[in-house]
Amino acid sequence: MATSIQEKSINTIRLLAADAIQKAKSGHPGMPMGMAPLAYLLYSKIMKHNPKNPKFLNRDRFILSGGHGSMLLYSILHLSGYKITLNDLKNFRQWKSITPGHPEFGLTAGVETTTGPLGQGFTNAVGMAVAQEHLASRFNKKGYKILDHYIYVEAGDGDLMEGLSHEAASFAGHNKLGKLIVFYDDNGISIDGPTTLSYSDNVPKRFESYNWHVQKVNDINDLKSLEKAIKVAQKEKDKPSIIITKTTIGFGSPNKKGTSEIHGAPLGEDELILTKRNLGFPEDKKFVVPKDVYKHFSTLKEKGKKEEDKWNKLFKEYKIKYPSEAKLFKQMMDGKIGNSWKKKLPKFENYGESLATRSASGKVLNAIVSEIPSLFGGSADLTPSNNTELKGYNDFSPVTPDGRYVRYGVREHAMAGLMNGIAIYGGLIPYGGTFMVFSDYLRPSIRLASISKIKPIYVFTHDSIGVGEDGPTHQPIEQIASLRSIPGCIVIRPSDANETSEAWKFAIEHKGSPVALGLTRQNLKIVDRNVLGAAEGVSKGAYILKDSKEKLQTIIMASGSEVDLALKSAEELEKEGINCRVVSFPSWEIFEMQSEEYKESVLPKSVRARIAIEAGVSQGWFKYVGLDGKTITIDEKYGSSAPQNIVFEKYGFTVENIVKVTKSVL
Amino acid sequence: MATSIQEKSINTIRLLAADAIQKAKSGHPGMPMGMAPLAYLLYSKIMKHNPKNPKFLNRDRFILSGGHGSMLLYSILHLSGYKITLNDLKNFRQWKSITPGHPEFGLTAGVETTTGPLGQGFTNAVGMAVAQEHLASRFNKKGYKILDHYIYVEAGDGDLMEGLSHEAASFAGHNKLGKLIVFYDDNGISIDGPTTLSYSDNVPKRFESYNWHVQKVNDINDLKSLEKAIKVAQKEKDKPSIIITKTTIGFGSPNKKGTSEIHGAPLGEDELILTKRNLGFPEDKKFVVPKDVYKHFSTLKEKGKKEEDKWNKLFKEYKIKYPSEAKLFKQMMDGKIGNSWKKKLPKFENYGESLATRSASGKVLNAIVSEIPSLFGGSADLTPSNNTELKGYNDFSPVTPDGRYVRYGVREHAMAGLMNGIAIYGGLIPYGGTFMVFSDYLRPSIRLASISKIKPIYVFTHDSIGVGEDGPTHQPIEQIASLRSIPGCIVIRPSDANETSEAWKFAIEHKGSPVALGLTRQNLKIVDRNVLGAAEGVSKGAYILKDSKEKLQTIIMASGSEVDLALKSAEELEKEGINCRVVSFPSWEIFEMQSEEYKESVLPKSVRARIAIEAGVSQGWFKYVGLDGKTITIDEKYGSSAPQNIVFEKYGFTVENIVKVTKSVL
Repeated sequence: MATSIQEKSINTIRLLAADAIQKAKSGHPGMPMGMAPLAYLLYSKIMKHNPKNPKFLNRDRFILSGGHGSMLLYSILHLSGYKITLNDLKNFRQWKSITPGHPEFGLTAGVETTTGPLGQGFTNAVGMAVAQEHLASRFNKKGYKILDHYIYVEAGDGDLMEGLSHEAASFAGHNKLGKLIVFYDDNGISIDGPTTLSYSDNVPKRFESYNWHVQKVNDINDLKSLEKAIKVAQKEKDKPSIIITKTTIGFGSPNKKGTSEIHGAPLGEDELILTKRNLGFPEDKKFVVPKDVYKHFSTLKEKGKKEEDKWNKLFKEYKIKYPSEAKLFKQMMDGKIGNSWKKKLPKFENYGESLATRSASGKVLNAIVSEIPSLFGGSADLTPSNNTELKGYNDFSPVTPDGRYVRYGVREHAMAGLMNGIAIYGGLIPYGGTFMVFSDYLRPSIRLASISKIKPIYVFTHDSIGVGEDGPTHQPIEQIASLRSIPGCIVIRPSDANETSEAWKFAIEHKGSPVALGLTRQNLKIVDRNVLGAAEGVSKGAYILKDSKEKLQTIIMASGSEVDLALKSAEELEKEGINCRVVSFPSWEIFEMQSEEYKESVLPKSVRARIAIEAGVSQGWFKYVGLDGKTITIDEKYGSSAPQNIVFEKYGFTVENIVKVTKSVL
Repeated sequence: MATSIQEKSINTIRLLAADAIQKAKSGHPGMPMGMAPLAYLLYSKIMKHNPKNPKFLNRDRFILSGGHGSMLLYSILHLSGYKITLNDLKNFRQWKSITPGHPEFGLTAGVETTTGPLGQGFTNAVGMAVAQEHLASRFNKKGYKILDHYIYVEAGDGDLMEGLSHEAASFAGHNKLGKLIVFYDDNGISIDGPTTLSYSDNVPKRFESYNWHVQKVNDINDLKSLEKAIKVAQKEKDKPSIIITKTTIGFGSPNKKGTSEIHGAPLGEDELILTKRNLGFPEDKKFVVPKDVYKHFSTLKEKGKKEEDKWNKLFKEYKIKYPSEAKLFKQMMDGKIGNSWKKKLPKFENYGESLATRSASGKVLNAIVSEIPSLFGGSADLTPSNNTELKGYNDFSPVTPDGRYVRYGVREHAMAGLMNGIAIYGGLIPYGGTFMVFSDYLRPSIRLASISKIKPIYVFTHDSIGVGEDGPTHQPIEQIASLRSIPGCIVIRPSDANETSEAWKFAIEHKGSPVALGLTRQNLKIVDRNVLGAAEGVSKGAYILKDSKEKLQTIIMASGSEVDLALKSAEELEKEGINCRVVSFPSWEIFEMQSEEYKESVLPKSVRARIAIEAGVSQGWFKYVGLDGKTITIDEKYGSSAPQNIVFEKYGFTVENIVKVTKSVL
């Protein structure tokens, strides 16, 4: 049987994947072998992309949501001429290789986002579609569609079973994200066996219910039908598309195809030989790319360059015609935000008055938004509680895609996944609000933001038992500690309005990892900065808010709403002749970035009588209080439904108790 | 207009809610006022329940998934004769009241589960339906349906927007849970405003796609249509039912009904008066229950008692006809598991050989399952990886509902939510597996298990960078710390096969909070218990595995896969004349339960040269190592894709490095 160059190319992808996984002795060959035709068709014919410049702004994106099929992506990127050598493929899953087990954003040219945990890539893609719609509506002009591309997604059974896909799909349908085209790899196999063990959704009906455009392709190897479906999907402007493609997991493997055995383990040398024989490839060779296959793909590079040249030309004209827009567009896409916004940062000088830090946060946001055109916010249906609203700005919606405020709905997890996609797309700084206690719902996406070195900003309000009457289900206890545990994630819990302003300053300027703000529901006193340490101390993570007059005996550290209590307790202690220092400690992560000298100046090693106060678990505070210090925290119990002042009192957050505990460590 | 007793009762519910919320100055009146007709109809006419015995085994359950509408539940429970007084309603949201902001399981008679975080109650209900189907299939006999009841659920827009509802609904449809009847409170309003801001799902179509039976009731105040729909839903045996009920949020309030304003704030005194006027109640009185309304409900108590008497009679006969089944049923429902299983716990005496703790866990499970009829396991589509399979037992499925192994699908969050429902239902000890890194996905449900004082067991395998090639997206770094941060949640990370056996022993015996096991993918040496401390030390949380021969100079503590490294490093240090103690530290929470004497005996305060080794973040370890000790951990970075031995080495988990660091603290 003479095979066409198409078929040969597809089989090359299949066998590169199978060989790499065999060599690594681990990996997931089933999906790449099944989905190879899609990767081939997209990269060789459908997609607008330039392998020589993977960051070409107006490229089509391809998101492999089932990141375990990474060899599909690496193989097609190699063949297409991206900076992935055959040697890189041979180093699949090895130390320091650019071909890790799951695709990692920022590590490998052509990898558009970090995937692996299921449902995340799908959701990132929806976020990218949001970013495109929004930026296109702000910058495209008649005849100058500077952003005009598709976002293609591979998604498997696992992606669609995850609740995250529901949230993201529902959001995408509601927002009519027509540029999004998802291919559902319907192979009927999951790790436990046939998907019928656990899964019988009517997928077309489900996606129709989300207002998606739905098509089916009965065999992914039928490239003509596949291409036809893609063309139809491209023409559908008002609905995201899902194309349900029937595939055979491990296609090409005579004995293992269509079984769960081939999902997550190498084929084995024997089966690999049989597979090569079956696909008409030399049995005794590994990592074979037939010359005509390389040749076939080589034209792509030129095609890609031409596409980018065309766009460059378009943008050059655009720059002439719309110079201010072009300038702003470039600035935003380059992540440049200038300095003018800093002057707008509010200083709250009504010392002694009270303001919840969530309210202060809302004031800060609305003060700076006009100077930061890339700020793009939202809330998971808690706008009035999170104070995340951008007054005077439209909602992002199908009618007003230029709106800068996103109604994420009660979809915390999707909000975070979308924010990742938005941040990766570029041009925008996404922030999103929910209650601190629900940070648990979006945790898997926070972790991926951190791995991907991007910066969404989370506005987590109602950050302690200070929530009051809503009770234990809504009072965070462990959330601040558990957010701090996420490597890279910067948690800031400001203690008053001015620290909140400084926290936002840090969040906006910071690059390379997510920032989570912990804000109160309840009012906090705006402390008098004429007599106490400057709020700029937030930029050091911890700072001396009030020092002892005489020789230092004890250090009381606290964060957020507990700082005021620390101050009051210190006053009492000073009255009794005990020399206290009060350290405001809004952020461990920022403090850890400081020099040893600075850290020693705030927390001198010689002073061992240390107290930490935080309305949450003690976990982690012992790093600062040591074996001789104590914490006034909430451990191994939950909050209670009652007015917040009563809950605080009952949980030991009183001057009396703090004074008592402090004395006990002296 | 003369109002019927039905209407009067419904308005009483509405106004009790509005009054209580006004008095508490916080709460959510909108939903109770809208959904009052449903609560009335269910509790007065439809449901089989006995207010005098809220634990009547064969009662119908009602789950208020939108827990913020708690006053709906408290009001109807009060009227129905449950142990909630009018005074309790007046104490809504106050310190130590039994009427907290959101319903709490175990606190209030008639509250079937803890709700508030959206999607959770819905999912718990699916779990209860699983428990019923399973137990009914094991214990019901012809003519003796000892478990035969419905599970009714109120769910709002928020519940249905949450991804969790997708996972649970898809699971329920697949498993044909016909006893489940959900009422969707379609009021078109969420906190941000009209749901059309963010939400345009075709809900009927969506649920049809999950194989649910779908009905609509155009006005919830039309009790006849509502009752008719319920009857139809009851008759549908093979499909869960959803009844979409159109409601008006805040029904009865002339100026605030149908607006987001009434969702989460008191009506205000003025509007409350107008509402009372509108509903024909005295304007100047609060907490009014008309006498004829009390009288109307009083018959219910008798009806409930009769229903339970009938069941008691049935069960008495059952006991005579099926004595062994009856005995087992009682034992299981009482949570009694006896002691025979303990003899089956494997002892691994092939010291020096290697076994992954996930494999050891699989062996333990399969050794004890025959002696623990209540053990009911599953995995989120990672059965072969989690080693959670119960060999020789069927899957729980519509064909074999007596099967004891659940195919949860790729639905980690729903797995945990279902496990909560199963644990609350009683009779079963649910365990469920996924990768440790995905513990993030199910975290909101773990927290609720802990608040609810129930014990699901999580089997979290692949518990560190030891995952190897799958790379950073699959290598947990912060998960063990963040699970430990959840109050009540007991985390056990055994260091070899024998500790794994002991960990399961603890997990099975423990009551009142969830247990999470952290297990390795990679093989671990089975340490020689003839020369080292006994594995029974797991029951103390931390224990001396190997003590120093001479005067103790340094303590090296470690958990899980790092314990073997600690032993090897101690050997090296001893060779150099440094006296080390090695402490195996599988569980912080269990250690903290021990006496101060025991803790001091393991970690004497005088010894400050302390090292902790764990392949995860250091967070929390400083409680044990203090300001003078050090940790060998993974901080502020993620894992890497490479073979596991290489990753361990590159991350400093080597004898050489541990010896060096230990010397630095001496």
